[in-house]
Amino acid sequence: MRSYRKELWIEIPSRMGFLNITEQVAQCLEESEIQEGFALINARHLTASVFINADEPGLLRDYETWLEKLAPYEPITQYRHNDTGGVNGDGHLKRQIMGREVVVAVTDHALDLGPFEQIFYGEFDGLRKKRVLVKIIGE
Amino acid sequence: MRSYRKELWIEIPSRMGFLNITEQVAQCLEESEIQEGFALINARHLTASVFINADEPGLLRDYETWLEKLAPYEPITQYRHNDTGGVNGDGHLKRQIMGREVVVAVTDHALDLGPFEQIFYGEFDGLRKKRVLVKIIGE
Amino acid sequence: MRSYRKELWIEIPSRMGFLNITEQVAQCLEESEIQEGFALINARHLTASVFINADEPGLLRDYETWLEKLAPYEPITQYRHNDTGGVNGDGHLKRQIMGREVVVAVTDHALDLGPFEQIFYGEFDGLRKKRVLVKIIGE
Repeated sequence: MRSYRKELWIEIPSRMGFLNITEQVAQCLEESEIQEGFALINARHLTASVFINADEPGLLRDYETWLEKLAPYEPITQYRHNDTGGVNGDGHLKRQIMGREVVVAVTDHALDLGPFEQIFYGEFDGLRKKRVLVKIIGE
Repeated sequence: MRSYRKELWIEIPSRMGFLNITEQVAQCLEESEIQEGFALINARHLTASVFINADEPGLLRDYETWLEKLAPYEPITQYRHNDTGGVNGDGHLKRQIMGREVVVAVTDHALDLGPFEQIFYGEFDGLRKKRVLVKIIGE
Repeated sequence: MRSYRKELWIEIPSRMGFLNITEQVAQCLEESEIQEGFALINARHLTASVFINADEPGLLRDYETWLEKLAPYEPITQYRHNDTGGVNGDGHLKRQIMGREVVVAVTDHALDLGPFEQIFYGEFDGLRKKRVLVKIIGE
């Protein structure tokens, strides 16, 4: 069995935002030389997500509007987590909706994705550098 | 290491609906001849889910009612994604709640599921054929 | 390829609650002797979750408040699942928000987690013993 590991550094220039990381993950797979296996891509931070959906700007705006409705940023005082001094209580909730990780099949040395599947990083407490882990196992 | 790959074709005869695919996945595992490993089962479409819960008709109706409340289909114009010409903006949101994929342990050449765990396909933009990927790795 | 399997038994002394199981999972990895691979940790019950977030009491209270708002326990009669005789319809919904499973990379014989990532069991129909599956594959 082979294994490969890499951390991607990401900085989103706003509190909430999304970044398509499919190409970066494909590059990791290229480097790994793994033909068949699984790729795990996960946020290493607790107010960020890795998820798969469409690269369509209207949809990404819909996610922002919707997540803000399900877990509003304000009022700050509604979250007991914010009593610890931060203001990112909402981000820990939003991230549960969007998920921490995706597992993608590796087939014939390629990411085995559907025609419109794109891998996204989702940020809910941005304006600072964060890390995504890419781990691939297989042979 | 062994690996196995198959696509399941599914058509749900309504906009939203659920299908128990546990037997189809178990059949894939049978064909794979893998004894110990992981099975990844994921939707290849962006308005569909694969998830694990109970095969109980009341529960499946509850999911429909609940998802419709959290991410309503109408009004169509509330979603910027629908500006691109479609009407499935809600489906991209519902799918994030229910998830894209499950990873199931394979033990002694069987799906290592709890007593009531059943693998479901969830459809949020149906009336057309879609695909689910089953990928199994192990030995 | 090596594989390892263990069930953890957990009893939460309330209907809803959370338990940090990171140390128990790390102990499983220790026993497995696996150096590189993936660890799957999943609930075997349908009203429970395994997820990763921060071990901060205010946040865990926020999750309870928020989940109760998104999928309220009462009125019991709002869920068709409860027509079957139980009262845990809400738990099947809450679990979909928080997720069934996490997949964690194994690197250098350790759980490859970010600095604040902790693995939690989430219970939405407690007061009885339930099981979590830990399955690790790799070499």
